[in-house]
Amino acid sequence: MSQLPPEVYTLIDAALSEDETFNDPTTGLLIPPEIAGVGMLRAKAEGVLAGLDVAEAVFLRVDGGLEFDPLSTDGTSLSPGDDIARVEGSAASILRAERIALNFMQRMSGIASDTSRYVRAIQGCRARIVDTRKTAPGHRYLDKYSVRMGGGHNHRLNLADGILIKDNHIEALASREMDLQDVIRLALEKASHTIKVEVEVETLEGVNRALEAGAHIIMLDNMSVALMQEAMDLVGDRAVVEASGGINMDRVRAVAETGVHLISIGGLTHSTQALDISLDLEFP
Amino acid sequence: MSQLPPEVYTLIDAALSEDETFNDPTTGLLIPPEIAGVGMLRAKAEGVLAGLDVAEAVFLRVDGGLEFDPLSTDGTSLSPGDDIARVEGSAASILRAERIALNFMQRMSGIASDTSRYVRAIQGCRARIVDTRKTAPGHRYLDKYSVRMGGGHNHRLNLADGILIKDNHIEALASREMDLQDVIRLALEKASHTIKVEVEVETLEGVNRALEAGAHIIMLDNMSVALMQEAMDLVGDRAVVEASGGINMDRVRAVAETGVHLISIGGLTHSTQALDISLDLEFP
Amino acid sequence: MSQLPPEVYTLIDAALSEDETFNDPTTGLLIPPEIAGVGMLRAKAEGVLAGLDVAEAVFLRVDGGLEFDPLSTDGTSLSPGDDIARVEGSAASILRAERIALNFMQRMSGIASDTSRYVRAIQGCRARIVDTRKTAPGHRYLDKYSVRMGGGHNHRLNLADGILIKDNHIEALASREMDLQDVIRLALEKASHTIKVEVEVETLEGVNRALEAGAHIIMLDNMSVALMQEAMDLVGDRAVVEASGGINMDRVRAVAETGVHLISIGGLTHSTQALDISLDLEFP
Amino acid sequence: MSQLPPEVYTLIDAALSEDETFNDPTTGLLIPPEIAGVGMLRAKAEGVLAGLDVAEAVFLRVDGGLEFDPLSTDGTSLSPGDDIARVEGSAASILRAERIALNFMQRMSGIASDTSRYVRAIQGCRARIVDTRKTAPGHRYLDKYSVRMGGGHNHRLNLADGILIKDNHIEALASREMDLQDVIRLALEKASHTIKVEVEVETLEGVNRALEAGAHIIMLDNMSVALMQEAMDLVGDRAVVEASGGINMDRVRAVAETGVHLISIGGLTHSTQALDISLDLEFP
Amino acid sequence: MSQLPPEVYTLIDAALSEDETFNDPTTGLLIPPEIAGVGMLRAKAEGVLAGLDVAEAVFLRVDGGLEFDPLSTDGTSLSPGDDIARVEGSAASILRAERIALNFMQRMSGIASDTSRYVRAIQGCRARIVDTRKTAPGHRYLDKYSVRMGGGHNHRLNLADGILIKDNHIEALASREMDLQDVIRLALEKASHTIKVEVEVETLEGVNRALEAGAHIIMLDNMSVALMQEAMDLVGDRAVVEASGGINMDRVRAVAETGVHLISIGGLTHSTQALDISLDLEFP
Amino acid sequence: MSQLPPEVYTLIDAALSEDETFNDPTTGLLIPPEIAGVGMLRAKAEGVLAGLDVAEAVFLRVDGGLEFDPLSTDGTSLSPGDDIARVEGSAASILRAERIALNFMQRMSGIASDTSRYVRAIQGCRARIVDTRKTAPGHRYLDKYSVRMGGGHNHRLNLADGILIKDNHIEALASREMDLQDVIRLALEKASHTIKVEVEVETLEGVNRALEAGAHIIMLDNMSVALMQEAMDLVGDRAVVEASGGINMDRVRAVAETGVHLISIGGLTHSTQALDISLDLEFP
Repeated sequence: MSQLPPEVYTLIDAALSEDETFNDPTTGLLIPPEIAGVGMLRAKAEGVLAGLDVAEAVFLRVDGGLEFDPLSTDGTSLSPGDDIARVEGSAASILRAERIALNFMQRMSGIASDTSRYVRAIQGCRARIVDTRKTAPGHRYLDKYSVRMGGGHNHRLNLADGILIKDNHIEALASREMDLQDVIRLALEKASHTIKVEVEVETLEGVNRALEAGAHIIMLDNMSVALMQEAMDLVGDRAVVEASGGINMDRVRAVAETGVHLISIGGLTHSTQALDISLDLEFP
Repeated sequence: MSQLPPEVYTLIDAALSEDETFNDPTTGLLIPPEIAGVGMLRAKAEGVLAGLDVAEAVFLRVDGGLEFDPLSTDGTSLSPGDDIARVEGSAASILRAERIALNFMQRMSGIASDTSRYVRAIQGCRARIVDTRKTAPGHRYLDKYSVRMGGGHNHRLNLADGILIKDNHIEALASREMDLQDVIRLALEKASHTIKVEVEVETLEGVNRALEAGAHIIMLDNMSVALMQEAMDLVGDRAVVEASGGINMDRVRAVAETGVHLISIGGLTHSTQALDISLDLEFP
Repeated sequence: MSQLPPEVYTLIDAALSEDETFNDPTTGLLIPPEIAGVGMLRAKAEGVLAGLDVAEAVFLRVDGGLEFDPLSTDGTSLSPGDDIARVEGSAASILRAERIALNFMQRMSGIASDTSRYVRAIQGCRARIVDTRKTAPGHRYLDKYSVRMGGGHNHRLNLADGILIKDNHIEALASREMDLQDVIRLALEKASHTIKVEVEVETLEGVNRALEAGAHIIMLDNMSVALMQEAMDLVGDRAVVEASGGINMDRVRAVAETGVHLISIGGLTHSTQALDISLDLEFP
Repeated sequence: MSQLPPEVYTLIDAALSEDETFNDPTTGLLIPPEIAGVGMLRAKAEGVLAGLDVAEAVFLRVDGGLEFDPLSTDGTSLSPGDDIARVEGSAASILRAERIALNFMQRMSGIASDTSRYVRAIQGCRARIVDTRKTAPGHRYLDKYSVRMGGGHNHRLNLADGILIKDNHIEALASREMDLQDVIRLALEKASHTIKVEVEVETLEGVNRALEAGAHIIMLDNMSVALMQEAMDLVGDRAVVEASGGINMDRVRAVAETGVHLISIGGLTHSTQALDISLDLEFP
Repeated sequence: MSQLPPEVYTLIDAALSEDETFNDPTTGLLIPPEIAGVGMLRAKAEGVLAGLDVAEAVFLRVDGGLEFDPLSTDGTSLSPGDDIARVEGSAASILRAERIALNFMQRMSGIASDTSRYVRAIQGCRARIVDTRKTAPGHRYLDKYSVRMGGGHNHRLNLADGILIKDNHIEALASREMDLQDVIRLALEKASHTIKVEVEVETLEGVNRALEAGAHIIMLDNMSVALMQEAMDLVGDRAVVEASGGINMDRVRAVAETGVHLISIGGLTHSTQALDISLDLEFP
Repeated sequence: MSQLPPEVYTLIDAALSEDETFNDPTTGLLIPPEIAGVGMLRAKAEGVLAGLDVAEAVFLRVDGGLEFDPLSTDGTSLSPGDDIARVEGSAASILRAERIALNFMQRMSGIASDTSRYVRAIQGCRARIVDTRKTAPGHRYLDKYSVRMGGGHNHRLNLADGILIKDNHIEALASREMDLQDVIRLALEKASHTIKVEVEVETLEGVNRALEAGAHIIMLDNMSVALMQEAMDLVGDRAVVEASGGINMDRVRAVAETGVHLISIGGLTHSTQALDISLDLEFP
């Protein structure tokens, strides 16, 4: 049932290779291949599950004779002790694959769980929790998928997905005597018809000028909640507004209550806490 | 100056590909390629640097015409505002590469910084802070390198690096009527002469039996500090002892003071906090 | 000067490998490696140049000791006899690389040239000539780059770049008792804030309903010019309009004069005519 | 049933990756995965089919749960409306894979169709229509396979397949004071015993000299039909003769009637017209 | 049943690609795909089998419709005429895959056979026959696996597996005014706790000094049997001893009788004699 | 100076990866990176050199700052003590790369040396020593290159290079009631014009029938020298003749004196003896 992108299989192969999965003396020398076992993947903490398909692909990549039965689905809330999946077959193969399967699933579920905490914190507000491009290298697809499993939404998948004019772009063009509005207008004129133009601003004046120039999306960078509120009053329905920078669990509800459309949180993917999941091997 | 393993170049290419670095409409449409700039990588928080060579490789992979000058070295303690490196050349190229270079360096420096906090916390004790195999898939080399830059040491690089008999192995062989000592002796007999045999135990009796059977290294799994102390008194000089499981900053010094040789901490690599580093682009 | 994406280097390597460039008995047995030559890449037909960087990368990949000097730039109009680039060094290396360098450059320049003919045909109209996803497998980046060099614009780079609701999507959801407007509203609600929603319609009623539901872009599929004109009158400024389907050089100006914003032409990339370019080897 | 070379799977993966098949918001957000559909691949124009196995591999790579049933075979003549294959399963998966499957099959069938037109044009003559090395980079195997499906034959698969002495080789060796006959004799002496020696000539004198020197194959480069006839009279049975350069549908029969053995046509693969094929999705 | 590491599949693909398995005119033009056959892999010489799984993977990679039945197991002693495996299906596919399957199996069985001869030669002694890192590039896993199948043991899998201080290392540090004992002590202090420290010595004095400094393993480099015996008397139980350098079948038993623990033989993998195995194709 | 095919770089990367070149604790912990050294590659046995470019590529891949100076050329005869190349720079880098560079060069020079022995043994005869497709998987290009460096010639590079009808092909077609001559005639009719048709025969009658049917090359399989002589008398100038099967140094001259054109020896590449080459590291 292959529904994972080619890049994920490549990453799985890289992970098995760097772990020398097929050169494991502990199982190779000690565990006779004919010993059969049943591995139960179980949550050991509260959280949200992500990564079932990847874990399955890891086990089957190590040994095509294993049988993997999911007992939950990605996006499900987990309590300690909850069964996640069952993998049956050669105990040696299960032991060889265990760590890599868990490394994927614990990271992915950690992202989903953290996202879910933010999503619940702003329940009732219209804002969406969105991710950033601050993902672990090679993990863009998996990290962003995990955010969705936690109830969040994805910001740009990659640079091609939209125009986002940041301070460095504005300063680069200032050296060509273009001001903020010139840059926005240039972007609107040149952009592909399928993508939108977002601009990062730090002041109310910036908001005003971005609005005038026609930006589709305005990113309020590192503003206080009070200033964000003023910005929202100013913008009304004229643009989509994203709050960004230094937003944590303490502050996220207040930010959402300003009425912003999007709250982006880099930490979801750049400072992931792995969710504790274990594999218990049984010999029935 | 290529001194990075082939896998790291492959990972860099994967990261550039998934970010569509060469399909960036923001710089492609707005920033004329002939605008030159100077990017300064700067610390925005306390920490320890790791990842200079990888960041350089990212910038040069995006544009071989950029000039990258390191202003620090991996393993150096950073304070907010400290300069890390300078990259000069086409502003568009610097902007395209920025996020991927930072994604690598922030993760790596985050690992080094966290490791360094643990290392300082046990200063004066003989214990080494060591990592685990709980690394981000595809990042084994970089994660383990970063631990060393933070003053830590590496546990097994991969499964091939040593024999580590865990509870699942012991239970698998129990089904063949082998007890703990049988398993250890089998491992000692079969193991390659270049690697050591480590066994995970949870009780003092386990410690005693592992010692008797001749295990080179004994891992005390999830023991209280008091129990660890008893275990250390029991072992004396007869084996290397590793403390493992649930060790955090609050507890690490007390663990170290029991005299254990190794303290392994999965969170260094599975729950990394990115170190805040920025790229400031200047137009001199 | 590496400013090509990793995928392009991979494609170059695949092309050299499938041509057995390094197992060429004609040069290997006949041409002593020390014979030096100068290869001149020259246009043999009217057209627009694209692919200089790729050709350079091919020659240098085959022999890092060759010197490649561009004598033109991508996007330049060519007349028969115009010099494009000069490559100097081992004649055997130049001969080994010639065909692959030309295979890239002739295809890319063919796309640029054809695009340019369409762009000139609608000069004075506001419409943009845009490409489609009907590119040669593995050539997406190069094909779309070539369209830009010919003065065209890019439609979606890939599926992630935007939402485009086609007849098959609408029919799939009809089986769930959703009508066109339900589908558009669902897309607008769920879509990422950075991308736009486009819908394909075949009738004026479809245009009307898409407008009402708030589609950002309306694709007129296979309409007559007269019907397109009616559609444009209906839409006014309320959406971006794309003409698509069966548009060729005979009809393109009439289509553009209806005032549509975009004219998409699959043939630019799926039925490319290679531009005739030769390599003349001289022995000065 | 994997009977495609590894390179083709690599190319399929590259095509899915560059199209972001697994990041498609249109199907991901709109089409519930449990909606089942049946996709019918159907010809929309006259032509010859090629690419069934590749299309199957694309669909199964995207979703291993799809069922693909060929309703025709490669090499079959198609009329508009003819069924080609049926693919059944998750509608979302079929929609994600559609474009890439068609991009392969339309190019391949386009090559087969064009080849077939040339083959029919020279029916009754002994000449074979052969391709060249002017294939789309990365598509050598598929392009050459498609030529065979259209009834053509393959010229050199790659540089290793034979010795072909062209004007540039002759000029390179002229600088070493070797004439045409010296070069041919050197090639015959040094060549592997499994391959033949072909030489490109432009004049009757060249033909004579090549014959004398013992060339196995003589390529008449850009000659008029009248001159070709003289060349054929001269050669008789003493060598295989290939006509090359500027041969199109208008001229091909006259060329074939001179009695040449081979007519090579670069345009079959460098200027391919895609064959129009559609996927109609049905919801039974 | 995939239990081969990803690198082996990559190597299989490379082997099929370099052999142009899918561009074979002999079978492609002559053997109709519907002719079914049964291929019997049979030993034509005495030896030990290795490579069954790899041969199976080659046949299935070429044609997923083939059926492969092993009739023996890796590590089994073979006599001329012994059946190894049976592969049934399309004769053309079997013929295409034959040479590559045999190239793997003949090399692997050659290594296993040669190892087995050494193992039998020292029967009754405690020494292990071990391999080295002198393996064919890209074949490390397969070469070392084959040594195990022949009854040998593996020395370091790779550089990461242990510390082995050779003459070049000692001389490099001599330039820093460190003597042999300083180097060994530095290694013991810095080494990971999971690996051992081995040192190469050429004299009895070297043995003594290495012992004093605490080396875990002492490699006697190119010593005469008499000198080895003296070294063994000197070491007693205080270290593991490896004999290395210039050991062949004539001398190996004498070396083993000195009581050394390990005898390493580079020739097992750097100068492999292929075992003669044939594929007989039958048409039942 | 990159003149190696992409596959060779891929193989070098695989070799460095499987050796964990960048995770070498011996040099990483012991040898400070600033210690400079000079490594001299020197022959320790008689032979013929091959592999200089590959060794250079290995050293530079490990550390782009090393300087590699060839002191000989591929194809040169070596005596013990002869200098081959000099590599200067970081001693740690030289030590990390040493084994992989030698693994390539020793195998390649071993093949060249063995080939050269056969070539000298038949000096004065017209026969060429040729290789087979029995190469180490992944090493086809390097193995065949090494044969040429030893003065041999290459048989088919791969399956695409020629038609070679073996006993298994003949038996497969016998089941279709085609005899040897039918098969040869079918091959001659269908084969590409650039390749030749070779057939394997075991008897004089086979020789006769192959000649009559027009085979370009006749392979005498496992014939005695006397029978080969009869075959040669029979063939005269009417075909190229290859002697194959069980030819060793004892027999090769007698075989050559029968007048055969080609003597193919699988052992050159399937049972290679590595040539002894060392790297001596000096600290000037």
